[in-house]
Amino acid sequence: MRPVALIHAGAGGRSREIEERQHEYRSALLTTLAKARAILESRGSAVDAVQAAVMFMEDEVDFFNAGRGSALCADGSVEMSAALMRGSDRQAGAVARVTRTRYPIAGARAVLDGPHVLLVGDAADHHAAAAGAEQRDPAYFTTERQQHRLATEPSRFERGTVGAVCLDVDGLLVAGTSTGGMRGQLAGRIGDSPQIGAGTWADENVAVSCTGDGEAFIRTGAARQLAAFVAGGTPVENAANGVLREVAALGAVGGLIALDARGNTALPFVAEAMPRGLWRGGSEPEVWA
Amino acid sequence: MRPVALIHAGAGGRSREIEERQHEYRSALLTTLAKARAILESRGSAVDAVQAAVMFMEDEVDFFNAGRGSALCADGSVEMSAALMRGSDRQAGAVARVTRTRYPIAGARAVLDGPHVLLVGDAADHHAAAAGAEQRDPAYFTTERQQHRLATEPSRFERGTVGAVCLDVDGLLVAGTSTGGMRGQLAGRIGDSPQIGAGTWADENVAVSCTGDGEAFIRTGAARQLAAFVAGGTPVENAANGVLREVAALGAVGGLIALDARGNTALPFVAEAMPRGLWRGGSEPEVWA
Repeated sequence: MRPVALIHAGAGGRSREIEERQHEYRSALLTTLAKARAILESRGSAVDAVQAAVMFMEDEVDFFNAGRGSALCADGSVEMSAALMRGSDRQAGAVARVTRTRYPIAGARAVLDGPHVLLVGDAADHHAAAAGAEQRDPAYFTTERQQHRLATEPSRFERGTVGAVCLDVDGLLVAGTSTGGMRGQLAGRIGDSPQIGAGTWADENVAVSCTGDGEAFIRTGAARQLAAFVAGGTPVENAANGVLREVAALGAVGGLIALDARGNTALPFVAEAMPRGLWRGGSEPEVWA
Repeated sequence: MRPVALIHAGAGGRSREIEERQHEYRSALLTTLAKARAILESRGSAVDAVQAAVMFMEDEVDFFNAGRGSALCADGSVEMSAALMRGSDRQAGAVARVTRTRYPIAGARAVLDGPHVLLVGDAADHHAAAAGAEQRDPAYFTTERQQHRLATEPSRFERGTVGAVCLDVDGLLVAGTSTGGMRGQLAGRIGDSPQIGAGTWADENVAVSCTGDGEAFIRTGAARQLAAFVAGGTPVENAANGVLREVAALGAVGGLIALDARGNTALPFVAEAMPRGLWRGGSEPEVWA
């Protein structure tokens, strides 16, 4: 099986800064792909590849809305969410409202093989810490850049949710998503990313990670619907477009990445932009910023 | 359109107490149906009918695991969840980890027409309070009965999640679910009930409320999958059975109620019992304890 890695860095509006810093931005996307590639090329697991790609994007401060540098809630706090799902056995792990776990996707990984699927708040941070996931003081995640944005444009949609879907040499499909949520959101609001079947899904046929107006992805059951289409024989690209039509019908913007068990991919979006990247075993990585 | 109301009170094992108190138990189910019927017969909305049915079950202390009398978390606390979804426009409202809102389904109702779908913790209680939903001290929800259970059988599966799906005279489909979660669960664990597409779903074709091992319903995207089957032309009963087969394949117990736009119903379960009830306009209510 030729391995494949797909990543996205959030659907949303074009930003002048990203236009001006194209080179850096593309470089961050390429490095993200390289993290997944290194694992997949050495016959590693798609679970590890997705986690490594998402962790790199969580650590990146300027461009991505996940981990350190996340969008701020209305009260100035950072509340992060992440989910990871393994297609072979549909085990899933997710965390929401984490405030101390440096890599929220590592928090999701800590839940993946346990009895629960979604842990929220202190319970999620404590569970992650007990599994060895690095903890930081909540202040670590707050950047001046995001404080400035909240002060000047408090309710502007924040792009930059990140996600990855990978297919490994053993044919395993895995999906992961991580986000700081919407700028200016009510602390306590949970979006689609950590909700399995809304923003994140993987089964034996397809792996999906979504981005955009989270509530629209919840109200359409977007990722699960896409998988139902694929299970019914619809090609992944048509399935992805069908789901995004439902999202757009709710007046929302968004996008998604989807990867099926034969390595077919879809990266559609209904938004001004959705930075994304694709690497396929034996080929060179491609990114679109 | 002939209105229809379906209710469930949780899939799980048979309990000796329920056997011994059959009359009271059946009476509680009949009263729940009567709450929905009164609204539907007077041409009221399925939203109000679902809410009224669920509120009655939340208030009932001995039999149902929702509202006052909810199962306790491992630390002895009560954390309640609820969701409500309206099929016509797919608006959805959900709350999780509420500790003060007397009727969690009223908390979900308070979210239904706003910009968010899922609010968690204090944010959910505050939002409910601001919308006029009655608040109580957290101690109000804890019963001696549940304290005894946690002390004697701390990790035994707790049946008694409640749900209702209704079709009103205007053809509107609505689903609602409310739960105290699993006895002995980690405080901070969120199950399927408040996750749209997992334990609760409604669209123009079908309304669904699930009960059972919550994680299995999340990992199968149960309610959303059922709706995808129905949208594809599968009769609701076959769709419901297909979804429960996926749940059972994960080694889980559970059940669900589903109601389509023509009034066709399904009430399957893979468990020893799932107390449930059905009322159809022009007919007498039926309950199975």
